[in-house]
Amino acid sequence: MDLSQLTDRINTGLAQLRYGEEPAALYEPIRYIMALGGKRIRPLLTLLGAYVFTDELEPALKPALATEVFHNFTLLHDDLMDQAPLRRGQATVHEKWNPNVAILSGDVMLVRAYELFLDVPAELLPHVLRRFSQTAAEVCEGQQWDMNFETETEVSIEQYLDMIRLKTAVLLGFALELGALLGGASRQDADHLRQFGVGIGVAFQLRDDLLDVYGDVATFGKRVGGDILSDKKTYLLLTAQAQANEAQRAVLAQHIGQPVPDADAKVQAVRAIYDELEIRPQTEALINDYFLDALQHLERVAAPETRKKPLHQLALQLMEREQ
Amino acid sequence: MDLSQLTDRINTGLAQLRYGEEPAALYEPIRYIMALGGKRIRPLLTLLGAYVFTDELEPALKPALATEVFHNFTLLHDDLMDQAPLRRGQATVHEKWNPNVAILSGDVMLVRAYELFLDVPAELLPHVLRRFSQTAAEVCEGQQWDMNFETETEVSIEQYLDMIRLKTAVLLGFALELGALLGGASRQDADHLRQFGVGIGVAFQLRDDLLDVYGDVATFGKRVGGDILSDKKTYLLLTAQAQANEAQRAVLAQHIGQPVPDADAKVQAVRAIYDELEIRPQTEALINDYFLDALQHLERVAAPETRKKPLHQLALQLMEREQ
Repeated sequence: MDLSQLTDRINTGLAQLRYGEEPAALYEPIRYIMALGGKRIRPLLTLLGAYVFTDELEPALKPALATEVFHNFTLLHDDLMDQAPLRRGQATVHEKWNPNVAILSGDVMLVRAYELFLDVPAELLPHVLRRFSQTAAEVCEGQQWDMNFETETEVSIEQYLDMIRLKTAVLLGFALELGALLGGASRQDADHLRQFGVGIGVAFQLRDDLLDVYGDVATFGKRVGGDILSDKKTYLLLTAQAQANEAQRAVLAQHIGQPVPDADAKVQAVRAIYDELEIRPQTEALINDYFLDALQHLERVAAPETRKKPLHQLALQLMEREQ
Repeated sequence: MDLSQLTDRINTGLAQLRYGEEPAALYEPIRYIMALGGKRIRPLLTLLGAYVFTDELEPALKPALATEVFHNFTLLHDDLMDQAPLRRGQATVHEKWNPNVAILSGDVMLVRAYELFLDVPAELLPHVLRRFSQTAAEVCEGQQWDMNFETETEVSIEQYLDMIRLKTAVLLGFALELGALLGGASRQDADHLRQFGVGIGVAFQLRDDLLDVYGDVATFGKRVGGDILSDKKTYLLLTAQAQANEAQRAVLAQHIGQPVPDADAKVQAVRAIYDELEIRPQTEALINDYFLDALQHLERVAAPETRKKPLHQLALQLMEREQ
């Protein structure tokens, strides 16, 4: 099972999708955002989820692509809501065109994502679409919580973890569950794969939060300290705020939610508190908990180790992005 | 077949729908827009489409409600894109909450609309969802054309008619086709009902354009002349521009696309040109053409007249809203 070959197959499949032609302002943005690239992790998970149970991966391809189209739909609308100017170094759709084009072409992407499921065998289709719809609603819930948290003063660590589960992890879980179902898995095994994906997803997002503070710019690819500068209530900040003594709390209050005269000074001051409170090892321990818990679900899937190995490898690969 | 009883059944069904609870900012706007009311024409068409073939309307109820949820999703996003402050006399969602809430709660409405189809018998589900998805994409295309036309200088009458077909009529056609399929109709009969609905839909929208200029405020419910004031390229204006002599063309150019110092004067001047060119009887003739063509499709449906009578009556009712 060669992951890069599988990614090539996914990219070929994506390139062959036809979203529509006219009006161009509706369909051109879809081709644009889909062509920005990305690691195609969700369709990869679907295909590897199917591979656990079958060698016939072709029937899983179109549904796998559906998860990627849906994911890019969420990016398109999220970028608009977050007023993000760039996505993978290129202008976002609402910047390149305008907000209305972003709204409407996003809407059509969601429709096209549903369409890509419609070749799923009739006996599986209602269940697959129920699970997809539930997942899609949860992803929207996660985005709404994320936006709410920007202005809420009291966000608990539990609420934050639930937000990243909804916004990021449940779709990874669904992508795996989908592959399992299409590969002929039992509902129970499909659910174990789903839980494996959710766990990996939360761990992956926590690692992303950690790299935002402690990562190497070259490998992380984003400016380090971005979350601190934007006062984002991540696991790191919420944990620091919960564990800080009075003096540390005062330093945090002096920087978080305040105007930033000196960006580097802010990042350094907040990171110093994180260091004092040992936020990094605490976060790494939590990531490890999620990761090990996820692996237990993978182990419980009733299939030979050799069939599960590519998934195990991909999970390791995702978690070790700094190495 | 008592239409008001059927509408009551639809409203009871809508009131029982559960979209979700938390976060409130995601789900409250859905309950809000669904509670603003409306004539519930689309679910009514689905139930009457089913009635042509069966007395068992209950299995068609949830899919019928899906068409209404989808319709209200389009209203929610369209109001945002059009920056409309009011919907049925109440604040629009983006005004009452904010644009991001309107985007995201709209997205969830589209997901919930799909979910409402999932009890459709497994043998029909793929076809129903394919037709729904095609229709949904066409409705988005219609909205994009409508927005494009605001800034385009050259819009043909044919383009305008195609825009209203996509934006308004195809969903009415799908609502009927859906009911027919659920009622056990042949694909051919379902398609005749669809074409009946599309024809009625275009006729209905043209009548709306006509009433905007020549309607009675009391019965029309909107300010008369709104389309003229906003320079909307309706069938009336496009026809007038195509048929105007040089003097009339100059009067139109003096008012259309120009700042409006005196709203009443603008409406009167443009309407005077319409009167000279007999735009009203021409529009009425076109409405009549679409209406009669639609009725021919209804006639071709292989079912007793008594089963089709409620649909015929509803169509008459829709067209005679001024009386």
